Amino acid sequence: MFEFPLEKHPAAFSSNAIDRLTALFSRLPGLGKKSAGRLVYHILDTDASFARILGEELLALHGAIKRCSRCGAYTEADPCSICSDPARDPVICVVERAQDVRVIEEFREFRGRFHVLGGVIAPLEGVNPDNLTIGELLSRVREEHIREVILATNPTLEGDTTALYIQKILKDTGVEITRLASGLPVGGDLEYADRLTLSRSFRGRIRL
Amino acid sequence: MFEFPLEKHPAAFSSNAIDRLTALFSRLPGLGKKSAGRLVYHILDTDASFARILGEELLALHGAIKRCSRCGAYTEADPCSICSDPARDPVICVVERAQDVRVIEEFREFRGRFHVLGGVIAPLEGVNPDNLTIGELLSRVREEHIREVILATNPTLEGDTTALYIQKILKDTGVEITRLASGLPVGGDLEYADRLTLSRSFRGRIRL
Repeated sequence: MFEFPLEKHPAAFSSNAIDRLTALFSRLPGLGKKSAGRLVYHILDTDASFARILGEELLALHGAIKRCSRCGAYTEADPCSICSDPARDPVICVVERAQDVRVIEEFREFRGRFHVLGGVIAPLEGVNPDNLTIGELLSRVREEHIREVILATNPTLEGDTTALYIQKILKDTGVEITRLASGLPVGGDLEYADRLTLSRSFRGRIRL
Repeated sequence: MFEFPLEKHPAAFSSNAIDRLTALFSRLPGLGKKSAGRLVYHILDTDASFARILGEELLALHGAIKRCSRCGAYTEADPCSICSDPARDPVICVVERAQDVRVIEEFREFRGRFHVLGGVIAPLEGVNPDNLTIGELLSRVREEHIREVILATNPTLEGDTTALYIQKILKDTGVEITRLASGLPVGGDLEYADRLTLSRSFRGRIRL
């Protein structure tokens, strides 16, 4: 029977194109080295046309998609289809990132406009109010005769801080300012709720 | 306060380049529609050079990588660096898929050769022995004066069946045929082992 050598030897097998693509994929969120490798082998096992189409779409992506100069969402046309739709209500939903626009659009119950902050206030990470599009939001509230601003930053310490800051900035405009409800997720279990969520659900309780 | 409409309305916001790339990514293993979307937005948030390099690597991939005409592994040169290495022991490790070669090479204790079957015998899925490279394996065992064939198909029903089938085919060559040990994973717990694994670990027990 074959005997294993006591000394380890360097692996002679190395396909550079595979290694490079694996390294690139593993830089994407949620993909470790193993899952990135699995993607590359899957693409190799698949018809070459798939890799070609995927490659071409990636090469074209940044050219095709820009940020809407008004709301900051990713869009092919500027201003985006939401900002240029006169039927949209004069309500602005303020979100942290461009992908949040998609999440709320897919939920299909909000028919107002959006404003992408580009992050949250996080002094330790060097993100100050000046780095966000808060000034632009203030201008829009006035120019677009907005009647309500819904603060939809995430229910985190930074998201809450940012919402509080925007609330102060917008105070003088007289616009109605609201914040998305925070509490127990639907279908959740009291037993598994963390203390902060439970505390929020008490403070935000609704009279029936 | 803004009133939610009772009637749902179709989402007007649609960025086609984002949708197309999301759809492509979601065809990869382990990526659902949500995680695929997260990748696309991450790429948009990242410098355009990343998408360009990733796209170029994908376009070049199938041109750069082929299958070794001898062992079936993915390689840039044909025959691959393993098959063309005269220092490799005349031992063939038989694996199901090309990526298994990498797994075993990275473990760096095996210094023999490989043979990629291209799958396992699975009649219900239309995979018969003729669809695998079993004939080529038989030729190699004779031509390369192989002294051991290690059957490293997965310890599944199909992997075991395929190993058994190959064992019969190679019987007349007189080559030593072995199978990777199957049993309790190192660091595992008896309590959590499934019945089949436990049964295997008993049948394959080693005298100390």
